[in-house]
Amino acid sequence: MIRVAHRDLLTFTTAVFTHRGLPPARAAAAAEALCHGDLTGTTSHGLVNLTRLYLPLFAESRVDPAADLEVVREVGACAVVDAHRALGLWAAGAAMDLAVDRAADLGVGLVSVRGATHIGCAGHHAARAVRHGMVGVVMSNCGHQRIARPPGGARPMLGTNPLSVAVPVASAPPFVLDMSTTVVPTGRVRAAARAGTRVPEGWLADDHGAPVTDPAAFDRGAAHLRWLGGTPETGAHKGFGLAIVVEVLSALLSGAGFGPSAGAGGRDDDIGVFVMAVAPDLLRPAGTFAADADELFTTLLGCPPLDPARPVRYPGLPEAETAREHLRAGVPLPDELFAELCAVAAAADLPAPAALVTA
Amino acid sequence: MIRVAHRDLLTFTTAVFTHRGLPPARAAAAAEALCHGDLTGTTSHGLVNLTRLYLPLFAESRVDPAADLEVVREVGACAVVDAHRALGLWAAGAAMDLAVDRAADLGVGLVSVRGATHIGCAGHHAARAVRHGMVGVVMSNCGHQRIARPPGGARPMLGTNPLSVAVPVASAPPFVLDMSTTVVPTGRVRAAARAGTRVPEGWLADDHGAPVTDPAAFDRGAAHLRWLGGTPETGAHKGFGLAIVVEVLSALLSGAGFGPSAGAGGRDDDIGVFVMAVAPDLLRPAGTFAADADELFTTLLGCPPLDPARPVRYPGLPEAETAREHLRAGVPLPDELFAELCAVAAAADLPAPAALVTA
Repeated sequence: MIRVAHRDLLTFTTAVFTHRGLPPARAAAAAEALCHGDLTGTTSHGLVNLTRLYLPLFAESRVDPAADLEVVREVGACAVVDAHRALGLWAAGAAMDLAVDRAADLGVGLVSVRGATHIGCAGHHAARAVRHGMVGVVMSNCGHQRIARPPGGARPMLGTNPLSVAVPVASAPPFVLDMSTTVVPTGRVRAAARAGTRVPEGWLADDHGAPVTDPAAFDRGAAHLRWLGGTPETGAHKGFGLAIVVEVLSALLSGAGFGPSAGAGGRDDDIGVFVMAVAPDLLRPAGTFAADADELFTTLLGCPPLDPARPVRYPGLPEAETAREHLRAGVPLPDELFAELCAVAAAADLPAPAALVTA
Repeated sequence: MIRVAHRDLLTFTTAVFTHRGLPPARAAAAAEALCHGDLTGTTSHGLVNLTRLYLPLFAESRVDPAADLEVVREVGACAVVDAHRALGLWAAGAAMDLAVDRAADLGVGLVSVRGATHIGCAGHHAARAVRHGMVGVVMSNCGHQRIARPPGGARPMLGTNPLSVAVPVASAPPFVLDMSTTVVPTGRVRAAARAGTRVPEGWLADDHGAPVTDPAAFDRGAAHLRWLGGTPETGAHKGFGLAIVVEVLSALLSGAGFGPSAGAGGRDDDIGVFVMAVAPDLLRPAGTFAADADELFTTLLGCPPLDPARPVRYPGLPEAETAREHLRAGVPLPDELFAELCAVAAAADLPAPAALVTA
């Protein structure tokens, strides 16, 4: 494991995206979104995806580094945006800024994006609303890509369809729920396959619903991601239903590609993104929402734990604690990933990120 | 099992609520919401709750049958409503109508309700938006009531916090996801306890996380509802996180009561309800959303099934099929429930519902 200063990772990643043609401010925003994964320990959505997901998008012209967001329709509190294949890592945050602007006037702002590319951690973009004292919501489908099967179905139809909600908390890190609607996203299965480890029972099932713990079976088509909820008896229809909600809100409101379309499925191009901001201080007397949110989250943190060594936490808090530690001690990267990044730098004649410590 | 015509159940329930002081049109709307449970097979939220939940609210003056909804704040696409203890079975639908009105002008309408009482099936109210070609969203917390424990926590803090999303589908019944954020709502555990049956592993856990299958252990405090997702390895933090989202959007935007408050918890008074409508035809050229929705849902229905006898379905479809069958053959009620309803009628000197068939 190599540790690299977060600032160095940002500089490196910004340089890579700038080299691929993004304007510098957009490259920096995209770098922040991508490095957020490693910073917070959400490594399935971090720099591991640079060579596996994002650079191939550039190489295959599936992303347009020069594309601007085009507002194709505006009505009331809503806007529909065509991202024209702009890099989703930047575009999702820009869409949230548009939603925040609307919410500041109208209490709620809804921005519906089509023609997007992969946005990285949805929670990073949802949390942009928190800086404005607002609640942020971000959902994304996977374009035409089909990954998971409907309960009882023999063919994949939907993506892993992440949804995220962020809430400001005055005296503690923000609440950030950032979840795939399957038990885990594909990145966690593939990370286990690369590492040669088994995955827990409950992540994958074979055609007959029996548990599969070999993560390599997933990309062989011999195992399928389960929906959040697990089995029919324990609520698989809820995870499936949430995935449909994400598909409808992100792709059907905007006119993006969607998995269960008449065509035979395809790649994660023409992704749809649903972005919403809600401004509590327009709905309630100033400060009362913040006071209630603080009471809610500190009460949760004060819940007596079953194990005194493991205090109760809420989504977003462990990630914030990890980020604080990584800002202090450097962001840990597996040796192979660090070598990958150095190779990317060398190929583009850019400075490689500097290792802080080898452990 | 006794079968009763749905229309007779509506007439009976309307009469009961009118007798308790509701204006007739509101009583009819509340009756429709309550009978929706039995009509669709969602019996945990049907007439079984009349004597267990709603009539006690009247008896204890926890509901005000004469209360009007007061719009206490209006801004842009949003309204904050104080329900002043109006019957939630009616009030949630009335709030959706306000949201639909706003969405018709502004693309999205958000109505945030405080001071509410139990709303019944959230999906029934979400589906009101579907008649207008809109997407409906309804979430509700459980007021001050604490039912489920945070992962790793030794004390209940949050409600079962339902969330619902409804989407119009042209050539098939609407999509209606209506889910508690726990594996199941309390009603299903208590129904099993009354029936003397075991519940599946995965619904309840003891203090150490071990499965409990005796539903009576729940009200003894010896078993706790699991969050959607089940265990920490399979995503319990997601169900917990969704419950927090519901708590924040329904109670903190409106200023309602909430479970993780400084007080020691309490009853499900001062419930908060989040109601949103989105008007796709204001965002996209008329008819394109409807065409895409039809394609999405018919493609899902056309997914080859693993078992040819069990075609793929989506949330809302089984309930619609059950409703169609119950409209034809009568709504089945357990003998004890039918007797309960007859006793309610006799006590109020109202006509009892008429049995169609005894099986």
